Amino acid sequence: MLTRALFHIRPLIIGLLMLSLSPVTSLAQTGPRATEFTLPNGLHIVVVPDNRAPVVTHMVWYRVGAADEPPGTSGIAHFLEHLMFKATEKIGTGEFSKIVSRLGGQDNAFTAQDITAYFQRVSKDRLPKVMEMEADRMVNLKLDEKEVLTERDVILEERRSRVENNPSAILDEQLGAALYLAHPYRIPVIGWEHEMAKLSRADAMAFYKRFYAPNNAILVVTGDVTPEEVRKLAEATYGKIPRNPNVKTVERPAEPPHRAARRIELKDPRAGRRTWHRQYIAPSYTTAAPGEAEALDLLLKILASGPTSRVYRKLVVEEKVASSAGGWYSGSGRDSGKIAFFSVPNDGVEFSKIEQLIDGVIAEVAAKGVTQEELERAKKAYLAEYIYQTDNQASLARRYGWALTVGSTVKDIEEWPERLSQVTADQVKAAVRHLDILRSVTGTLLPEAPDQPPGSRS
Amino acid sequence: MLTRALFHIRPLIIGLLMLSLSPVTSLAQTGPRATEFTLPNGLHIVVVPDNRAPVVTHMVWYRVGAADEPPGTSGIAHFLEHLMFKATEKIGTGEFSKIVSRLGGQDNAFTAQDITAYFQRVSKDRLPKVMEMEADRMVNLKLDEKEVLTERDVILEERRSRVENNPSAILDEQLGAALYLAHPYRIPVIGWEHEMAKLSRADAMAFYKRFYAPNNAILVVTGDVTPEEVRKLAEATYGKIPRNPNVKTVERPAEPPHRAARRIELKDPRAGRRTWHRQYIAPSYTTAAPGEAEALDLLLKILASGPTSRVYRKLVVEEKVASSAGGWYSGSGRDSGKIAFFSVPNDGVEFSKIEQLIDGVIAEVAAKGVTQEELERAKKAYLAEYIYQTDNQASLARRYGWALTVGSTVKDIEEWPERLSQVTADQVKAAVRHLDILRSVTGTLLPEAPDQPPGSRS
Repeated sequence: MLTRALFHIRPLIIGLLMLSLSPVTSLAQTGPRATEFTLPNGLHIVVVPDNRAPVVTHMVWYRVGAADEPPGTSGIAHFLEHLMFKATEKIGTGEFSKIVSRLGGQDNAFTAQDITAYFQRVSKDRLPKVMEMEADRMVNLKLDEKEVLTERDVILEERRSRVENNPSAILDEQLGAALYLAHPYRIPVIGWEHEMAKLSRADAMAFYKRFYAPNNAILVVTGDVTPEEVRKLAEATYGKIPRNPNVKTVERPAEPPHRAARRIELKDPRAGRRTWHRQYIAPSYTTAAPGEAEALDLLLKILASGPTSRVYRKLVVEEKVASSAGGWYSGSGRDSGKIAFFSVPNDGVEFSKIEQLIDGVIAEVAAKGVTQEELERAKKAYLAEYIYQTDNQASLARRYGWALTVGSTVKDIEEWPERLSQVTADQVKAAVRHLDILRSVTGTLLPEAPDQPPGSRS
Repeated sequence: MLTRALFHIRPLIIGLLMLSLSPVTSLAQTGPRATEFTLPNGLHIVVVPDNRAPVVTHMVWYRVGAADEPPGTSGIAHFLEHLMFKATEKIGTGEFSKIVSRLGGQDNAFTAQDITAYFQRVSKDRLPKVMEMEADRMVNLKLDEKEVLTERDVILEERRSRVENNPSAILDEQLGAALYLAHPYRIPVIGWEHEMAKLSRADAMAFYKRFYAPNNAILVVTGDVTPEEVRKLAEATYGKIPRNPNVKTVERPAEPPHRAARRIELKDPRAGRRTWHRQYIAPSYTTAAPGEAEALDLLLKILASGPTSRVYRKLVVEEKVASSAGGWYSGSGRDSGKIAFFSVPNDGVEFSKIEQLIDGVIAEVAAKGVTQEELERAKKAYLAEYIYQTDNQASLARRYGWALTVGSTVKDIEEWPERLSQVTADQVKAAVRHLDILRSVTGTLLPEAPDQPPGSRS
């Protein structure tokens, strides 16, 4: 059974960001090294050897995501991702995953604001077959009107179970919509329900024809295979597909200056606890000045990641006003990154108290910076995560695939541990300026019945 | 000198809404009556006789506005409106207004979210000339690259003087951007500055070619002229222009359900006073159930228009917490309407007090309705405005032009006084449900320095 995934920012940070853009220190020379080349049709290929077991992970990344959807068709990128598991001339309806499964492999796919990716993990001798199949559906997708409508019910149900039944997810959507004034990151990846309900076969095919092409894709293969083997296989499969000269990156609306902080309050009786949230727009690895995104990664680790972080210690340990408090930085966006804080206040504690304490923690770092000990501990934490994730073939493939798709280079990725290790305490202190309240939204979730329009209870 | 205008919602309500969709009671049979017909090329023509003086008002309304702009090109509708005063084959650069002026006439133009309109007021014997000129620039606009760039500086300067130098206008923009989650009404008509700065001749021509055509326009002529005279002149001018089969109404993204009220706080040292604002998305005349928009017009008149309104009496007269308080309903949007309240609190009065009192006034009407006396007074007030505005030829033309352009019919417009007169107190009470806090944004403006990013003052 497929569990195709939709990456919102949060899972991304807990999962992918750390996976894809992680560090550290003396590891610079010990990590795996990628080989890259480009086919004449524009397909960018990256091979990362990992010979510990006779398996390979094969991923195709398209440089298109939810943020590229035509207005009014939100959800089409993710919908198309689902539909890619339907038929081509060669593969019968719904057969794709069954074939991978019969080969003893696993497959899946996911969609985020900037990317859409498909992957299979198979034993190395099965690689030719999955490459043939993935290349086939890059341009030969066949969509039956009736199947499209059936699958639309699937994504609508996915939305119901993931968002509509989850007050935190509803708040996340509302926060996103308020955080950005113009940029399409404001629209949820899964789509607005009323727009999803109108998505058609024609919408899906138009999106597919416009964005799915070798010159808009990156192939990442990790595992027990050499670059030369991959090149030969790729030439025989993807290499047969002509470049599509009409593919071009969508120019997305940029943010105007932010003049006023936003606030939202969501009341939902299904919410378990009162929770407090804040998000800031920040630079991403693609948009930041050199070293700035690395400093933000370290800053948020020190400020808000885990029980030794400043925010947790202040709110949970010292002041005892909250049962939970933390935050994260996501630097993997093509056009911007995001910083978030959250807390679950104890009963009777006002949200304003939570806010005041978190702002106090931030102000303290802005004024006095972080300690050398905190900085070293944060770097070491990334090192541990990095090693752990390098150990996982799929994580390794995602590290390269995600970063390359949003505009980083192999060099950027491989020198990341080195760059992170060079970040100074002063740089971390300077990065606090990105916690700019004017570029933020603050949200609260209350386990209460929502306000009713006046008169509706009378 | 041209003072071409940009209609934001506020001027619209004070000016146009009242002008274009106004009432009342026994006037139904006394107002002027329009004659309408359509040319074979799709141009919809409306003639409203007014023979008191030998003058005519000639307006062309295009069914396109800022809400139809391609993503990333905000401001192009208004920019094109400016550029329409440049050259055609027949009219030299900048000559259009000079010619009208030499004919003893006046001309102008304006852009709003749903419409773009051009008008001239001339003596009746000059009508053939202005029709010839307006028809000419409907399809024959010639844009010189250099002139486009010069005019771009003009609109950027317009933005600076109207918005950037005006904290209230900045707040209005931020309120709009937070009120709508998906619909393009969230984008300011004048455009976001960073997008305006990139608008090109190509953008303007693409917008022009896509939307300016006889089958996307409505010609309204009021004044000392018969429908037959207008028909002959129109056939000889506009009638020569072929229909453009590619013109179609842009399908604009619709709003998802609103789950959480938004709040924003703008600090600007240039603000004179602390002010409080709230806006709600509401039905418009085009989207409301029968009678509902009329009830909203009356409700807001009673609640919030002028010193006899409930909000003013409560806040300014009785509680003495504010020097000003009021509100309005704008029902002229194609896709939705808007309700707004505002107040200027006295020194020392918290915003929360203002909010509580206004919510109290709303709750009281929700529970007990309005009095018959209030209702009659509100209807009479509309009657007076209606008569006053009917007296003005340009207002009369705008009444028809605006309403027709956003989807009303001549019948809708002319039966409006009758429909308004039939609204009952119960209907007004029921309309309070549209003051739905979940579909609202609340904003405050403070005369203070904006919050700085942490560390930026250290």
